[in-house]
Amino acid sequence: MAQDALIRLAKTILDFNWAGGYTRPGPRLYPHQWSWDSALIAIGYAHYDQDRATKELGHLLESQWENGLLPHEFHDPHLTGESSGGLGFWNAGSDPRAPDDRQTSGEIQPPVHATAALHVYRHAEDEAGARAFLKEAFPKLRAWHDYLHRERDAEDEGLVYIRHPWESGMDNSPMWDQILQRIQLEPGQVPSYQRGDLQFVPAEDRPLDTEYDRYAYLVKLFAERAYDEERIRQDCPFLVQDALFNTLLCRSDRDLAEIACVLGEDPSPFEDRAGRIAGAMNRKLWDVERATYLSFDLVEDRLLKVYTTTGFLPLFAGVPDEEKARRMVEALESPSYGLGDESVKAVPSYDRYGYGFSPDRYWRGPVWINVDWMLMQGLERYGFKEQAGHLRRTIVDLVESEGFHEYFDPVSGRGHGSGFFSWTAALLIDVLMDEGR
Amino acid sequence: MAQDALIRLAKTILDFNWAGGYTRPGPRLYPHQWSWDSALIAIGYAHYDQDRATKELGHLLESQWENGLLPHEFHDPHLTGESSGGLGFWNAGSDPRAPDDRQTSGEIQPPVHATAALHVYRHAEDEAGARAFLKEAFPKLRAWHDYLHRERDAEDEGLVYIRHPWESGMDNSPMWDQILQRIQLEPGQVPSYQRGDLQFVPAEDRPLDTEYDRYAYLVKLFAERAYDEERIRQDCPFLVQDALFNTLLCRSDRDLAEIACVLGEDPSPFEDRAGRIAGAMNRKLWDVERATYLSFDLVEDRLLKVYTTTGFLPLFAGVPDEEKARRMVEALESPSYGLGDESVKAVPSYDRYGYGFSPDRYWRGPVWINVDWMLMQGLERYGFKEQAGHLRRTIVDLVESEGFHEYFDPVSGRGHGSGFFSWTAALLIDVLMDEGR
Repeated sequence: MAQDALIRLAKTILDFNWAGGYTRPGPRLYPHQWSWDSALIAIGYAHYDQDRATKELGHLLESQWENGLLPHEFHDPHLTGESSGGLGFWNAGSDPRAPDDRQTSGEIQPPVHATAALHVYRHAEDEAGARAFLKEAFPKLRAWHDYLHRERDAEDEGLVYIRHPWESGMDNSPMWDQILQRIQLEPGQVPSYQRGDLQFVPAEDRPLDTEYDRYAYLVKLFAERAYDEERIRQDCPFLVQDALFNTLLCRSDRDLAEIACVLGEDPSPFEDRAGRIAGAMNRKLWDVERATYLSFDLVEDRLLKVYTTTGFLPLFAGVPDEEKARRMVEALESPSYGLGDESVKAVPSYDRYGYGFSPDRYWRGPVWINVDWMLMQGLERYGFKEQAGHLRRTIVDLVESEGFHEYFDPVSGRGHGSGFFSWTAALLIDVLMDEGR
Repeated sequence: MAQDALIRLAKTILDFNWAGGYTRPGPRLYPHQWSWDSALIAIGYAHYDQDRATKELGHLLESQWENGLLPHEFHDPHLTGESSGGLGFWNAGSDPRAPDDRQTSGEIQPPVHATAALHVYRHAEDEAGARAFLKEAFPKLRAWHDYLHRERDAEDEGLVYIRHPWESGMDNSPMWDQILQRIQLEPGQVPSYQRGDLQFVPAEDRPLDTEYDRYAYLVKLFAERAYDEERIRQDCPFLVQDALFNTLLCRSDRDLAEIACVLGEDPSPFEDRAGRIAGAMNRKLWDVERATYLSFDLVEDRLLKVYTTTGFLPLFAGVPDEEKARRMVEALESPSYGLGDESVKAVPSYDRYGYGFSPDRYWRGPVWINVDWMLMQGLERYGFKEQAGHLRRTIVDLVESEGFHEYFDPVSGRGHGSGFFSWTAALLIDVLMDEGR
């Protein structure tokens, strides 16, 4: 297929998923607005539809709470049938700090928003319009980052924590197994909920019910503490300094510094924060043996020695030094991740030999385009042009031959999850249209 | 079905699986002799065929190594086709302490052998023949227990450890997840092996490949250390003081004391050991909050807070005091285990709300007849007649309505794994023929 045709197809998918104010991540499985989906989708729009890109991010930022929390989900009130799924909303929408006119969740997702906003500005045809957009977005993005550094870094370490697997963006990652296993539940402790996902995709591709029970239990714990971070912190069994979340905050703090420069504001507070995160990651999260970054379990005060691909994404934020980066690329080229191995379609989301690896179960092994898109840019950033070029080709080939799926089997290439998946389309547009960068 | 007809059916299954010197656990999936299967099968034979019962145990004891190790598997040399499966034999058969004329593994399984031997003696019609059998078995059983207390209790705590999930008898129990997850593998570290199981049963009912990789890796680690327990202990990432294994050793030590009495030998060393195990279990493995016994991870020096049903089986060995037992029964009657709940067919092998619970995947949730058989006797021992009677009825009903399967879905009752499963038949015979005890 010619690249132009592939780009046209990707744009058609985004049009199909456009819901008027935001873009649905997937047509049936994901009808609402999700936080990091939205930011990644805006990165695609930035290349050809500035208006859509700014509307997408603007709509998302309208969900922000007064304390700066940017909710992981805006719940479209027109979709309240059973098929809309839906945990996560208990009492969050009625929080006094939440917007009056919206139903939002009280959790967050990885902070890629300043990065997306800067991307939109940089690709804008209408520079004045983009600057006006940045001017409006800047205080909201700053409040979002302030919330994270203030509320999620209780010990002032430079690292923020997440308090729910959903906040990682990678719900059922094997990274969380040890923590979720230690949450002992009885049926009375699990609020009743209805899974919306299993109507549309096979149960064997999705998280287990015993995982969902724990997701629901944690949301209930938050609601019972009225989304008070201090009270949550005291009792929550899931408090993790996640490598990817901190990577993206580091990158976003740097990008927020650039936005500040564009607007004539002082960039130094944001630069300082980015530097502190990188320093803390190198001190606390670096795994010297396997040359990767790990996540840290604050409840048991120990590193989670589980080797998902997110441990290599600090390349995307410039966290490692050159020597660390060289060793990370060697690890990526091992059979565990198969970068450069022709029998592997693209880099899987988890060590192929890791305990519990699955080629088709959600975040437990399949290829995800956003992960490989960040990895590709990280490789470029450190000058690993050949590896980045290979990864670029495998991403494009995979989507071209299999379709715009949510995720893919790393060996067979078979697509899984939602079809017509928005961020797959948006990031492919970025890969194809930014090729000359 | 009349009880007599059910008993006749069970006997027919054992006849069908009788291989001349031992009984196959299942006709296709399990063609060799396995250690704890064999002991449980002898308990069934004891009721109607003393000769078969003593042959079964005698054949097993002939596999014993010179150092007392009783191998978990005797590999029938007539079955060497691919369908015979088979990890576990690398270099173990050639160990100088192993029998010359047999292929055996170098791992063990839970010690129910003295218990089985005493059961055979107690049900014997030919008392003199049974005494002769005990006389021959006694030094071997003593050597087996000596091996466990000497080689597997390095700190002389009174608790023995296992060094492989297979040694627990419950290969893919969620109990082992945290330990197996911390074993990081690359393909060169996994010896090549062929899974024999997946030809006969659906993959989704069985352990994952990434579990099998770790089973194989551990066996290779043993072989490379020539089955030297001290060297294994230094390097093995899996060293667990398992609640069930120690329960059964405690019970078997008591039963060995009784065998000693029958033979006019001194019972006190065995009684002392049983008492030490029970004391250590109550000190170290008791979980006061959930009223159950846990297993202890020696490598990370901490309790494994995973609540499988084996934590209640210390009732079978008289380990808890009356107060603990009462609390254990309360826990068993909670929805997690559903004892007495009519919607649950029998007690599942794992907390139904435990992380990773599955109603159909091997040792991760289904009903196993041996677990419920031990539990039933434990309840009887402490005077919980109503609960024991209920469990007895559910076991019989399940087998009568679903067949002699290896294991069962605890809610639907559907049978899984091998059909014509020998220990299901043997223990049902015990349940039905011992009803008046």
